Amino acid sequence: MEAGTMKNSSSSPLFIYLAALILFFLLSLLQSPVTASAQIGFMSPAIAALNARWLMAKNNWGILSTISVDLGGAPFGNVVSFSDGEPGHGFGVPYFYLAELEPTGGYEINGTRAALTVSEDPLGTCRKDAQNPNCKRITLTGKLKWISLENPEIKFAQVALFTKHPEMKDWQSYQSFQIYKLDLEDIFLFYEFGSPKHLTPKDYLKVPPI
Amino acid sequence: MEAGTMKNSSSSPLFIYLAALILFFLLSLLQSPVTASAQIGFMSPAIAALNARWLMAKNNWGILSTISVDLGGAPFGNVVSFSDGEPGHGFGVPYFYLAELEPTGGYEINGTRAALTVSEDPLGTCRKDAQNPNCKRITLTGKLKWISLENPEIKFAQVALFTKHPEMKDWQSYQSFQIYKLDLEDIFLFYEFGSPKHLTPKDYLKVPPI
Repeated sequence: MEAGTMKNSSSSPLFIYLAALILFFLLSLLQSPVTASAQIGFMSPAIAALNARWLMAKNNWGILSTISVDLGGAPFGNVVSFSDGEPGHGFGVPYFYLAELEPTGGYEINGTRAALTVSEDPLGTCRKDAQNPNCKRITLTGKLKWISLENPEIKFAQVALFTKHPEMKDWQSYQSFQIYKLDLEDIFLFYEFGSPKHLTPKDYLKVPPI
Repeated sequence: MEAGTMKNSSSSPLFIYLAALILFFLLSLLQSPVTASAQIGFMSPAIAALNARWLMAKNNWGILSTISVDLGGAPFGNVVSFSDGEPGHGFGVPYFYLAELEPTGGYEINGTRAALTVSEDPLGTCRKDAQNPNCKRITLTGKLKWISLENPEIKFAQVALFTKHPEMKDWQSYQSFQIYKLDLEDIFLFYEFGSPKHLTPKDYLKVPPI
């Protein structure tokens, strides 16, 4: 009976109108989240999540911050290429291809805490100084997780990385590279002056593929 | 007598020829350190230092990795604009303009350990994937040091920052910004596959202004 009521209400002209309005709004954001965010003074979690996911889907490199064992627990940053999926099918979780000889990949990093920071600057869509928060930037924190060749996820990860970074296919001949992902714990999106927008992985991940 | 001998030898045609050759070589590196480094299989500390200083002088933003108090000691990265001097007069030490409300600038960061990571990718001089070490990248580690308005160094720091980042002059109206520099302890330059090139601040800083 309750299900029937819900079905009726979801078919009403008002519901369809509102759904179309929301869909149109979301599609317009997908086309140009930068412009859209500039038009609105306050960014809801859903819109912040959309901007965050756009920034991650369009960028393909950032800096991975970890704690350096060699430097006695000091923070260390390394340039890493990443991919969250094939173009147009980014799911928001960054995958990496890290070598043993690199400072970031050289130790027991599986399970360690890390942060990936990405700027809008390399996209060419931002005409502000890179530190100006109107030039969006994002920091994702979480734990690095090694994806073994036996893990079914490895196929998705390989396609995601090798499609956006064709060079990577040849890197194995130089060193032993392994695939990792960042298991998300927190997301900080910077926009406009003031504190960063704090996003939960749940809000961030429920945005459709970009 | 020994001084006289030295003076004589320093005026000999061979000495002048060698000095001119070294000067020409150094100047050619200054013009295009990327090409020069690709031509030589092994990079001496002096040439590595020159490449490192070039990368820092030409770039104007990077990611500053610190330890996050909020996240219980996890690493955190933040996009920061920096300057090591006016164009053509970069001395290698990065200065920053950090706000209290930003995660990096919000706490007692004076004296804390930090790392600045910079990629060649934004310069447009690299045609490789950002993680390919032929696309140079550098990580400078050290301690953040607050430059007070009473410190004579503040004038140099302000000119350095505001020349390369004219927008910064207006940021003060939004928030309280303070100037910091990175007191260098170690420098890691990544080039070609394999381990990073480790540089001492002494080797790095003795390169003439770029």
